[in-house]
Amino acid sequence: MTTTRTSRPAGDAGPTLADLDEDQLLERIFPALPGGPAVLVGPGDDTALLRARSGAVLATTDAMVRGRDWLDEWSTGEDVGRKLVAQNAADIAAMGGRTTALLVTLVADPATSVAWVSDMTTGLAAAAAEAGIAVVGGDLSSAPTGTLALSVTALGELDGEPVLRSGAQVGDQVAVHGTLGWSAAGLLLLQRDSATRAPDLVRYHRAPLPAYEEGPRAAASGATAMLDISDGLVRDAGRIAKASDVRIALDTGLLADDIGRLVPAVGADGARDCVLTGGEEHSLLACFPRAGVPSGWRAVGVVQDGSGVTVDGTVTVGGGWDHFARRATP
Amino acid sequence: MTTTRTSRPAGDAGPTLADLDEDQLLERIFPALPGGPAVLVGPGDDTALLRARSGAVLATTDAMVRGRDWLDEWSTGEDVGRKLVAQNAADIAAMGGRTTALLVTLVADPATSVAWVSDMTTGLAAAAAEAGIAVVGGDLSSAPTGTLALSVTALGELDGEPVLRSGAQVGDQVAVHGTLGWSAAGLLLLQRDSATRAPDLVRYHRAPLPAYEEGPRAAASGATAMLDISDGLVRDAGRIAKASDVRIALDTGLLADDIGRLVPAVGADGARDCVLTGGEEHSLLACFPRAGVPSGWRAVGVVQDGSGVTVDGTVTVGGGWDHFARRATP
Repeated sequence: MTTTRTSRPAGDAGPTLADLDEDQLLERIFPALPGGPAVLVGPGDDTALLRARSGAVLATTDAMVRGRDWLDEWSTGEDVGRKLVAQNAADIAAMGGRTTALLVTLVADPATSVAWVSDMTTGLAAAAAEAGIAVVGGDLSSAPTGTLALSVTALGELDGEPVLRSGAQVGDQVAVHGTLGWSAAGLLLLQRDSATRAPDLVRYHRAPLPAYEEGPRAAASGATAMLDISDGLVRDAGRIAKASDVRIALDTGLLADDIGRLVPAVGADGARDCVLTGGEEHSLLACFPRAGVPSGWRAVGVVQDGSGVTVDGTVTVGGGWDHFARRATP
Repeated sequence: MTTTRTSRPAGDAGPTLADLDEDQLLERIFPALPGGPAVLVGPGDDTALLRARSGAVLATTDAMVRGRDWLDEWSTGEDVGRKLVAQNAADIAAMGGRTTALLVTLVADPATSVAWVSDMTTGLAAAAAEAGIAVVGGDLSSAPTGTLALSVTALGELDGEPVLRSGAQVGDQVAVHGTLGWSAAGLLLLQRDSATRAPDLVRYHRAPLPAYEEGPRAAASGATAMLDISDGLVRDAGRIAKASDVRIALDTGLLADDIGRLVPAVGADGARDCVLTGGEEHSLLACFPRAGVPSGWRAVGVVQDGSGVTVDGTVTVGGGWDHFARRATP
């Protein structure tokens, strides 16, 4: 994945959305969008039509808003497009599925530059194409001054049964695939104007790249519960605990490598916080029957009788991001 | 359909979204959402899982933004929820399909009142339930001050082949099912502070109610091309003409009843404009082989050799709504 810093922010000079009519804008966007074998009817008609071989379809939706989910100073349009793919496709993967198609809605101040929309489309189309995902439709809507929001719906298919959050069993291993805390650490570095200290973390914050194929692989390996880490390891583990009516006991001894990896960038306390509570990581968290953790996954705890989440035996109330709260926890 | 005027505008007093955390808000929303036989996994996990009996799924998305798509002075949250269902389900119907499920994203200023969100949910859930549609997922995101936007994705199923815009044949009849110009006329009355002159038109503007079942029925009757009227009869007819590489000749003599119906409310010129160019109607426009127009549909023109749209033999450039244009035509 390349994430260049050359594209322009949304409010930069050049033509704006108000300078093009909708058809002209769509003519610029459509050719960039990847198709795929699942697409029976693509963009341009009333709806898309997708093949759903298995006789069922997974569906999820996730939005990003400028100023809340990204800042133009820190993220290009291309980053935003890539991140939209990641957060939606990770949800499909977390059910054990493969994403087949995306629909994208842009709600934008007409003063938004066409260049930004082109960059976002480039990033979204590239990330989708790399993952074998078609982009099959969308909508454009004008918005009040300063507003730029994107909403993506992802559709996907399962090979077998879905892996829900509610299937964890006492005695299961709790395991992670992918990084922990990189997105949060990258954000901290941007906030401290220290992006050069760890460009890989910053890059991951801007455009996470979870291993989507691990979702179906975990399902085939017998995962009993799974989700992707959107709001932090502790909080998301709490969701599995609640849905499965179990306790999840996390062990920071098993997270030592994850924490150690971040210490040079954000210090010891920052590293621990990022690993335990950092959101937007989109790595997969799953439970597996004892001794059933697949290669490439690493155990981070166990499933016990009880409720909630413990960290090294201490009950925690969580942390992580709440969209509408007056004060968000870090 | 009842559209009471009792619910509060989005910025009214009472608790706001900032007073609840996301889980508390979702706990208020989830119980209102209709399920259905197509839902294998509903809201609350990473994604929904829907049955797709036919082995394929229709997918479309459409957004509404406060200040552009509705004004709080004129539309309640319930109206907005109903309109969201209508505009998305009409797109599925226009392919000849039946809507099975919706996903809903709310992008809102945290100062938005919880009461407005509850009203919107009520309207959306009621309109969905009346049409046999499940609501299976969504997303919540905070937005800059003053912004309130909703994005809905609709999924649906086909009994047979999809009816595209591109199948119209020279010699076909062009026909409409449902009203023409009511939404635009209702908007004009609101703009003129004359809503009491024709409450039925105003009600239709606030919450259109197309006959979704006519889409599959038209498909079964041999419709060669179809769409729903989102941007005005002339402009949408132009879309079929372009996609099918034909000319569509509209005859206002066939629209006399439609125009006459609106004259008392908006005058003769206004009535003609509303019928020909009024958007957001979501009635169905379709082409049928000669003598194949189903009962309940009425012919409004014919398909000819050529391109574009004529009205009584005169070529027209259209009209209708463009989302980002500096000056929208009425």
